Amino acid sequence: MENFTFYNPTKIEFGTNKEQLIGQHLAQFGVKKVLLCYGSERIKQDGLFTTITSQLNEHGIEFIEFGGIVSNPVLSKVREAIKLIKATPVEAILSVGGGSVLDSAKAIAAGAKHEGDVWDLFIGKAQIKSALPIFAMMTLAATGSEMNTTAVVTNQETKEKLFIADESLFPKVSIVNPELMQSVPKDYLVYSAADIIAHSIEGYFTATDQPHLQSRIVEAIINTVIETTEVLLSDSTNYNARAEFAWASTLALNGLTTAGTAGFNFPNHMIEHSLSALFNVPHGAGLSIIIPAWMKWHHSHNTDQFKRFAKQVFAVKTAEEGIVALENWFNKIGTPTRLSQLNITQKDLPLITDNVLNNAKIFGIYHIYTKEVVNTILQDAL
Amino acid sequence: MENFTFYNPTKIEFGTNKEQLIGQHLAQFGVKKVLLCYGSERIKQDGLFTTITSQLNEHGIEFIEFGGIVSNPVLSKVREAIKLIKATPVEAILSVGGGSVLDSAKAIAAGAKHEGDVWDLFIGKAQIKSALPIFAMMTLAATGSEMNTTAVVTNQETKEKLFIADESLFPKVSIVNPELMQSVPKDYLVYSAADIIAHSIEGYFTATDQPHLQSRIVEAIINTVIETTEVLLSDSTNYNARAEFAWASTLALNGLTTAGTAGFNFPNHMIEHSLSALFNVPHGAGLSIIIPAWMKWHHSHNTDQFKRFAKQVFAVKTAEEGIVALENWFNKIGTPTRLSQLNITQKDLPLITDNVLNNAKIFGIYHIYTKEVVNTILQDAL
Repeated sequence: MENFTFYNPTKIEFGTNKEQLIGQHLAQFGVKKVLLCYGSERIKQDGLFTTITSQLNEHGIEFIEFGGIVSNPVLSKVREAIKLIKATPVEAILSVGGGSVLDSAKAIAAGAKHEGDVWDLFIGKAQIKSALPIFAMMTLAATGSEMNTTAVVTNQETKEKLFIADESLFPKVSIVNPELMQSVPKDYLVYSAADIIAHSIEGYFTATDQPHLQSRIVEAIINTVIETTEVLLSDSTNYNARAEFAWASTLALNGLTTAGTAGFNFPNHMIEHSLSALFNVPHGAGLSIIIPAWMKWHHSHNTDQFKRFAKQVFAVKTAEEGIVALENWFNKIGTPTRLSQLNITQKDLPLITDNVLNNAKIFGIYHIYTKEVVNTILQDAL
Repeated sequence: MENFTFYNPTKIEFGTNKEQLIGQHLAQFGVKKVLLCYGSERIKQDGLFTTITSQLNEHGIEFIEFGGIVSNPVLSKVREAIKLIKATPVEAILSVGGGSVLDSAKAIAAGAKHEGDVWDLFIGKAQIKSALPIFAMMTLAATGSEMNTTAVVTNQETKEKLFIADESLFPKVSIVNPELMQSVPKDYLVYSAADIIAHSIEGYFTATDQPHLQSRIVEAIINTVIETTEVLLSDSTNYNARAEFAWASTLALNGLTTAGTAGFNFPNHMIEHSLSALFNVPHGAGLSIIIPAWMKWHHSHNTDQFKRFAKQVFAVKTAEEGIVALENWFNKIGTPTRLSQLNITQKDLPLITDNVLNNAKIFGIYHIYTKEVVNTILQDAL
């Protein structure tokens, strides 16, 4: 078991009506003015926007609206917000949405405290020294961003999808009300399931030191995601399934599953980020395509762990059977498993490969993910 | 799934040589003078005391020594420390030892900020308003106190073993170096295993709302404790087993396993506290006696969960088989399962029952744990 530091000070307010606490929490941190980030205008139709602004008014908190943040959030939008709050300062960032809005909020929070261009923080030209306090209200469970330090943003000009991470980016408070997630469409539900499973298995399969306890916790999360996704596909109003799905999502990437593990990396995310950056595919959809192909390439490097996965998750025996079972399950729930389902074909592979190889340098695993390896995985995913 | 707030800001420094960081962490909190609490003088023989005091000296931190804290820590000692630091103020409490030292340190930290008698905080006569910052260095893994808000102390005069809990009692930093636990004697290792299992199953079996994800995490912890205890009994120097045991211990009582559950209580602890208070038995030894007897009484109230436990932990089928398997396992590792093994006999039961009934009021479950029920469980444990 590897040495580690575990520190996660985010307060999670989980459950029904918890959105009613947002004013109180902001006020406790002495916030008088906030940038209110969100995605589509849907939150104005379903009443959530009114709930939030009433809360802010009640606690005497001013706000600047900043809507229109899209999935696979883009750098241009982050820069726009930073420019806005450098002209009209706020004391905190409030994110209302899923991981894309929250990741944008984190980048805005760090960028507001940085003198140069925010992208410098992504490409390692500058370090994050501080950030505005971040508060989150989640309307989709997938990325785990509500309880971690990470944010992923796409630079549309350079076609790079890169991340930042810093302790200052832990949200102070994250509100997770599963009822607010009930209207998530089925396609985004199954993409989210793939994303949570991806967060869970990256370390599980790639770590050079993987304690059994950590493997068991990962299996607990994956089995919960599988079980609850199936319930939600047949009954989208099932609160308990929605809630377990959401909490599994948070636990999958809050540091718990990788504490004490060593040498792990994120190859599926690394490859998928190129698909998102180049073709703007939904992140989870890209992952469910890459994962089976990556597993087929990787399993011989860590056969025992793949056998363990096969047994503990799908009650089958061999590594290969486990991989097939996961691919079949992705097909069953309706998340894609082939690039062709996203209209990506053989002719696109060189462009994707080049982009992945650039990511591999940033992920520090270019010695493993050579052009040949990446091509093998992508060919298999066609 | 029940609404919950999850908040745990303790920083865990886990692994080899982490004790070398204590001076740095205290200095980061601006601490200039600390009360150094410990148990036996063993830490002076094995070099740990020197390591710590060198660290303190290096960072210009003064300290007052306060040794001699015993297992089942006592109120008189807590009062003694509070008197000492009210006369000679310190800015923080540093605990070096297991749960008994840390629980004393927490009571001292709260008592130092309280104007009246510290016991008032235990019996509900007064509320904790603040506490001195607490830092912990663990030499035994069992209680989970290193990452929670709770402290348990025995009042020898009234024969009450009671607890306090408050957010101010989260240790700021807890250092968990499994190597410092290598010298724990085998009897205390197996008592600790029983204690961790007790923390895991109390909620698991008693909750009225128990999400599957939480059950799975509990099973991950219990299976890890079983596996690593067996390894350590045959090879006490196995670092990975010691480390997984320690991390399982921390996770078993840091709020993770009960998040989203409802209506749970701690009947095994409630009954055991009476054994400790009256006969000063090791807490874990008392628990391994009470648990099988309590399970035999309780299982018909929650048969499905007992069947689940039987299957997931011992790969047997019925509730009864699961209970027998756990009792057999306790016998196998050498932690007691009968009161007679601690020389407690039939004639002692009325005294124990009275004490338990007093605890039942404080635990808020006297309507379930009537005299008859408590007597049934104790008779079965003879």
